[in-house]
Amino acid sequence: MRPIDDSPIVRDGKVLILAMDHGLEHGPVDFEPVPETIDPSTVFDVGTHDAVTAMAVQKGVAEAYYPSYEDDVNLLMKLNGTSNLWMGEPDSAVNCSVDYAVEECGADALGFTLYGGSNNEIEMAEEFRKAQEDARKHDVPMVMWSYPRGQGLKNDRDPETIAYAARQALELGADVAKVKYPGSPENMEWAVDAAGKVKVVMSGGSKTDDYAFLKQVEGCIAAGGKGLAVGRNVWQRENPREILDALEAVIYEGASAEEALDR
Amino acid sequence: MRPIDDSPIVRDGKVLILAMDHGLEHGPVDFEPVPETIDPSTVFDVGTHDAVTAMAVQKGVAEAYYPSYEDDVNLLMKLNGTSNLWMGEPDSAVNCSVDYAVEECGADALGFTLYGGSNNEIEMAEEFRKAQEDARKHDVPMVMWSYPRGQGLKNDRDPETIAYAARQALELGADVAKVKYPGSPENMEWAVDAAGKVKVVMSGGSKTDDYAFLKQVEGCIAAGGKGLAVGRNVWQRENPREILDALEAVIYEGASAEEALDR
Amino acid sequence: MRPIDDSPIVRDGKVLILAMDHGLEHGPVDFEPVPETIDPSTVFDVGTHDAVTAMAVQKGVAEAYYPSYEDDVNLLMKLNGTSNLWMGEPDSAVNCSVDYAVEECGADALGFTLYGGSNNEIEMAEEFRKAQEDARKHDVPMVMWSYPRGQGLKNDRDPETIAYAARQALELGADVAKVKYPGSPENMEWAVDAAGKVKVVMSGGSKTDDYAFLKQVEGCIAAGGKGLAVGRNVWQRENPREILDALEAVIYEGASAEEALDR
Amino acid sequence: MRPIDDSPIVRDGKVLILAMDHGLEHGPVDFEPVPETIDPSTVFDVGTHDAVTAMAVQKGVAEAYYPSYEDDVNLLMKLNGTSNLWMGEPDSAVNCSVDYAVEECGADALGFTLYGGSNNEIEMAEEFRKAQEDARKHDVPMVMWSYPRGQGLKNDRDPETIAYAARQALELGADVAKVKYPGSPENMEWAVDAAGKVKVVMSGGSKTDDYAFLKQVEGCIAAGGKGLAVGRNVWQRENPREILDALEAVIYEGASAEEALDR
Amino acid sequence: MRPIDDSPIVRDGKVLILAMDHGLEHGPVDFEPVPETIDPSTVFDVGTHDAVTAMAVQKGVAEAYYPSYEDDVNLLMKLNGTSNLWMGEPDSAVNCSVDYAVEECGADALGFTLYGGSNNEIEMAEEFRKAQEDARKHDVPMVMWSYPRGQGLKNDRDPETIAYAARQALELGADVAKVKYPGSPENMEWAVDAAGKVKVVMSGGSKTDDYAFLKQVEGCIAAGGKGLAVGRNVWQRENPREILDALEAVIYEGASAEEALDR
Repeated sequence: MRPIDDSPIVRDGKVLILAMDHGLEHGPVDFEPVPETIDPSTVFDVGTHDAVTAMAVQKGVAEAYYPSYEDDVNLLMKLNGTSNLWMGEPDSAVNCSVDYAVEECGADALGFTLYGGSNNEIEMAEEFRKAQEDARKHDVPMVMWSYPRGQGLKNDRDPETIAYAARQALELGADVAKVKYPGSPENMEWAVDAAGKVKVVMSGGSKTDDYAFLKQVEGCIAAGGKGLAVGRNVWQRENPREILDALEAVIYEGASAEEALDR
Repeated sequence: MRPIDDSPIVRDGKVLILAMDHGLEHGPVDFEPVPETIDPSTVFDVGTHDAVTAMAVQKGVAEAYYPSYEDDVNLLMKLNGTSNLWMGEPDSAVNCSVDYAVEECGADALGFTLYGGSNNEIEMAEEFRKAQEDARKHDVPMVMWSYPRGQGLKNDRDPETIAYAARQALELGADVAKVKYPGSPENMEWAVDAAGKVKVVMSGGSKTDDYAFLKQVEGCIAAGGKGLAVGRNVWQRENPREILDALEAVIYEGASAEEALDR
Repeated sequence: MRPIDDSPIVRDGKVLILAMDHGLEHGPVDFEPVPETIDPSTVFDVGTHDAVTAMAVQKGVAEAYYPSYEDDVNLLMKLNGTSNLWMGEPDSAVNCSVDYAVEECGADALGFTLYGGSNNEIEMAEEFRKAQEDARKHDVPMVMWSYPRGQGLKNDRDPETIAYAARQALELGADVAKVKYPGSPENMEWAVDAAGKVKVVMSGGSKTDDYAFLKQVEGCIAAGGKGLAVGRNVWQRENPREILDALEAVIYEGASAEEALDR
Repeated sequence: MRPIDDSPIVRDGKVLILAMDHGLEHGPVDFEPVPETIDPSTVFDVGTHDAVTAMAVQKGVAEAYYPSYEDDVNLLMKLNGTSNLWMGEPDSAVNCSVDYAVEECGADALGFTLYGGSNNEIEMAEEFRKAQEDARKHDVPMVMWSYPRGQGLKNDRDPETIAYAARQALELGADVAKVKYPGSPENMEWAVDAAGKVKVVMSGGSKTDDYAFLKQVEGCIAAGGKGLAVGRNVWQRENPREILDALEAVIYEGASAEEALDR
Repeated sequence: MRPIDDSPIVRDGKVLILAMDHGLEHGPVDFEPVPETIDPSTVFDVGTHDAVTAMAVQKGVAEAYYPSYEDDVNLLMKLNGTSNLWMGEPDSAVNCSVDYAVEECGADALGFTLYGGSNNEIEMAEEFRKAQEDARKHDVPMVMWSYPRGQGLKNDRDPETIAYAARQALELGADVAKVKYPGSPENMEWAVDAAGKVKVVMSGGSKTDDYAFLKQVEGCIAAGGKGLAVGRNVWQRENPREILDALEAVIYEGASAEEALDR
């Protein structure tokens, strides 16, 4: 972890990552609720909202669409990822080198998934090592998607597991840890404490109603969380800019979920 | 994906790849219907037809035969491939480096198979990463043979699977996605949408009669597909130039299957 | 092994490493006995005690916290490590390159775990080889956490096993061998003899009472051991500086456990 | 495949490779029929016969014996090979780098085994890729020992399998394909056709009587084969030069087996 | 194999390697018969005997002890080795690079174990390839510990197996082959013949009485063997210099076992 408050992906110490790698991770079925989202441009348009500090996409999407948005959107290149077509212990392919992401695609930040608890954890951690050290050479922040899963884990939402995931991000050298919301502000606080100086952001998860979602984000911020990395809970809504307005209030202005919805 | 409309393998925004790597993938049995096709020259001769924008072959065939055709044929070097002599989860050997393909063999484009859904998907995706980034250095288009298969898949012709395959090509950074035809123009349209700016072409598959074949291609084009990558459905015919004449009409001139056959 | 008596991590021929990689190896549960230890700063503060010759941490913790302590603490970068979330034969991910540890983080020494007896011993030994030879280029001491474990081992505290572990450190080229205390000064002496010129230090293990712990350390020193690498037995105490005062007496001044506690 | 008719291992478009890697592949038991053949010099002496265009040996034999024969024998360095002491899916260790073979040992040609159909085919093909491209840098011909075998194959002498093996050599970029004789000139012709411009030579196999052996070679040549790679059928005879005289007649002069024996 | 008669590890065409890597391969239990041998200095002292042409040790022992003996002892760095703590198919970790051994430690020769017949034979042979070619760059002799073992072998003392092991050393490019003594001079002669120009030395094995041991060495020399690589049969004796005096007579002066013992 290095100080990243001056980096483009941070606003007032907070982070809001709009993720759109679902086409790779889940397949095009994730675009069905709002069919036009199958066109990455529609999500990049959403990403121009001031609340969003970075868009997280895979290399191919960045190559094809980012050139039209580079003045309005910060690029977080997700370095690894895989489809859900295969079965087996969790693993993720490294789809982009750091040099290519930064030098050719103009990435402002990098993202890397670690499946702690998988039989492939060792291999993934070693791939992360190379990516992290390469990122340092370019002085670009590294966000870890820290998601314990695999045959060694019974419950990947267990508060201790989430706190462990946050700590892994600190110990291995990430600058931001993206973790599942562990169910309560108290549990989130454990994760935040475990991560030390690393910024912890919650992942948005599958789509829920506005209030429930914002209440979680409020709990995350109250617990010392630094923001959110979200996909479906934004772009699977009919009016994604509305929820971004509300998220902006909760994350950057300290509003409650109720206040944010009343605006 | 990068703009490739000005590349030699594109004609009026469309692509027609004549593939002849069957000697490696299927063995010499594929040449039995038209015995002289066992001689690669006969297929290269077919490849000089104006409808064909590139010939796809393995390295050894390019080394031995392409020097006689380099003025008349564009070379698409297939970078990986394997025999069907062995058994096991789908995989493909990387048989040619990008540098060798471009600098020594004069490749105008590159091809790479990804078996999404295979237990070897991770490894293949990482091999693709290197090939794709090397291709960018040479500014040469990359075509992905995106063929989900393996123990994780029940039905590799399922429309959602084909759309997923097309999306993988976009997310991972291909310029052209070669997918199986998913049975109807509506299904093909899903794949085309999922691939975004990436050009989707259908694979020719095993030999069918002229009308059925051209009708599929017509459906592909109507759905926004950008063409075809075909082998047996051309060179397993007694008169391959005739079917190429018809394909030319359907792909580049927007003719229907019936119109193309009536000419 | 090379002479390291003049290196910063040695004081009067002895070594006292304060280890804090438990957040990675065991998870945040290890911080529960003294909750503020979840903040690495509190442990770094402890590490400024004169008795401590080096702090052992993972790369991410070094990046985030060491800059504030570099005048007061010597850094021992632990190069490999993993979580206990997964199951399987003992193994450890290489999380930091030697170049990065020394050039970017300012490491004064390096640490590497070898699980002799694991089915992964071969792979770990080969990773150690590279790390050790890289360490030589930088003239930085290498400490081996030599911990036999795995399906091949019935009893990892067997005196012969501990002596074997110490010998592995010598044969493979470590400068300091960290081993489990084998239960008696006589057994420790075997390990010390087996390690030859390599300094053997005992690992602190899980928290015990002051007298029992200091008596072990006294036994270690009496047997020719050169010190201690300890974590929980220091920072899981309410007043870690008190036990460090006592350890200082036992390790550097030859005091008995009783004398050290009476001061 | 590149034109190799001007290379030292070709005489009048034909090739006769005298192989002696049996000490590695089969063990010293192969030398028992003619005990002095255990001394490589005796076989190198045979290799000075004009009919022989190259000797195929492993690196160590080349280092030790070739310096005495470099004026009289062309060296074909076999790059991979293994013992028959172990069990498992067919595989072969890469025992020599191309640079070492050419620059240090003076190799005029290179040889590489591919076990198509083995579960290790992918790995072997990728090792071949590197060797082949390195060979091109040195402009040295590459001979593939194309031997389908492994759990995927019921019958490695099946004519279709042999033709497939020959085609693999073409597709992957060999200059010469060494295959088992598929039982008849008609079958051999299929293999020759499948290999296209690549020269196909038959392997000598285990020792048979003069007439049967020469008849096979006659059939091979009649089918368009370009020669022979032979070991035991030459140096397991009491007078190996006699059979080489006969082979010279059959291969280079178009004699029948009967004519060759009558001379 | 290259000519090594002028190298420092050869005396009058013969070789006597004193090996002391037992602390790694077998553990400290091997030092119990003569407890002071746990200190490597005591064995290095033995190694100064004129009969010894090189000491074989692992990297760490060389780093720590060889600087005191470099004027009196020739260093043979054993490049691979492993503990007997784990179970599984025979394998050996590469613990030292050739560059480090030669440039940093001053090695006069190198040693490498190959377990022919192990499922890991392929991997070990490929590691040997790199080591051997690197050794050539430094013009340093390579000794192969050629020890067939693994699930493919019923009897690793079978004369044919030993002869095969000796041949592997020749084929793969070693300069000296260390093999088990195959039970009789006739059997040893087969191994010597199979190795061709490569010098074959017998391994000392576990401790036996003086006469039996010397008789074996006499048989080895009579069969054309070039010496011995010995550990326990020297330094597990109370007076190791006495047996070295006798070995000197048998190996370099052609004495019989009886003559050597009568001196």
